[in-house]
Amino acid sequence: MARVFDELVSANERFVSDFDKGHLDMPPARRVAVVTCMDARLHPERFLGHELGDAHVVRNAGGRVSDDAIRSLVISQRLLGTEEVVVIHHTDCGMLTFTNEQLAEKVQQESGVDASGIDFLPFPDLEQSVRDDVAKLRSSELIPDGIHITGAVYDVKTGRVSEVADKA
Amino acid sequence: MARVFDELVSANERFVSDFDKGHLDMPPARRVAVVTCMDARLHPERFLGHELGDAHVVRNAGGRVSDDAIRSLVISQRLLGTEEVVVIHHTDCGMLTFTNEQLAEKVQQESGVDASGIDFLPFPDLEQSVRDDVAKLRSSELIPDGIHITGAVYDVKTGRVSEVADKA
Repeated sequence: MARVFDELVSANERFVSDFDKGHLDMPPARRVAVVTCMDARLHPERFLGHELGDAHVVRNAGGRVSDDAIRSLVISQRLLGTEEVVVIHHTDCGMLTFTNEQLAEKVQQESGVDASGIDFLPFPDLEQSVRDDVAKLRSSELIPDGIHITGAVYDVKTGRVSEVADKA
Repeated sequence: MARVFDELVSANERFVSDFDKGHLDMPPARRVAVVTCMDARLHPERFLGHELGDAHVVRNAGGRVSDDAIRSLVISQRLLGTEEVVVIHHTDCGMLTFTNEQLAEKVQQESGVDASGIDFLPFPDLEQSVRDDVAKLRSSELIPDGIHITGAVYDVKTGRVSEVADKA
C-alpha cells in the first residue's frame, strides 16, 4: 500500500526549506494550553492565531478532559509554566453521532474484540460537554486553583470560536 | 487576570473574516491520523502540509500512544475511515527531562497532592519511545491489522520529519 506518510515527508521538505524557528524555547510563550478535538477540519493554531512556540495543544476524540489530557496539563503547568486552559469542542462533532454500545458492537462485529468496557467519551449535547469538561478541570485536585479555565465551541461552518457560559 | 483567551478570540475574528471552508465533510480526506506531542513548537498541520479537512491529529504530552490515544484512534478508524497512523515524537521534548518520581514530588510539594500513582509517560530515549509506541499500536487488538503504522521524529531545530526504522 502506498503510504500517505511519504506524501507528508515530501510536503515537509518544502517546510524545512523555509524553516527559521529553530531557536525557540520549550515553554509556551503565551503560557496557555488548548484542549480540543482531533477533527480534521480543526487547525487550532490557525483559528486561534498561534505562532510557532505560543501554546500547548492537546487533542483527542472530542477534545475531552480525559485522565490523559489531565496528565498532559499537569506536565504543561508544573514543568512548563502554562497558567490558562481553553477547552474547545466543535459543531458537527463525531462524538455526537454514537453511543458506547454502538461502537463496541461495531468493534465486536469487525474484529471479534470485546470493547464493551471502554468509555469512548461520546456526548449528546455539545455545550453541556464543554461545561462538563470545564467542571472536571475545576474539580481536579491536580489542577491548581490559580489556573484560569475557559470553555468554548468552534463552528466548523463559520470558523468562529464562541465562549460557552457557565450555566446560570 | 487578563485572559489569553480574549486575545485568541480577537485573532479568531480575523480567521473568520477569510474563512471559506465551511463545506468540508467529517471524515479526513487523506484517511490518516497523526499522533504527536502537545509541544508549542510543533504545528503539525504546517510541517506535514495538511489542508483543512485532511487528517486527524491526536496530541498529548510526548505524543504517546496512551489508552486515550487508542480510544481516539478507534473512533478515527472505525467511524471515520482512517487507514494509517503516523506517530511523531520530537527532539528537545520535555518528556526527556523528568521521571515520574520527580514530577510526583513537585506536585506533592506545590499542592500537597499525592500523584505517586500516576504514570506521566516520560521517556529517556527519543527513538526508542517512538518504537515502543509503534509496537504498542501493532500489538493492540483494537487496531486492525490492515492499518499502516509509521514512527517518526520531528527536529525542532530544523523542522525536519525523519522516519524511525524498526530495530534490526
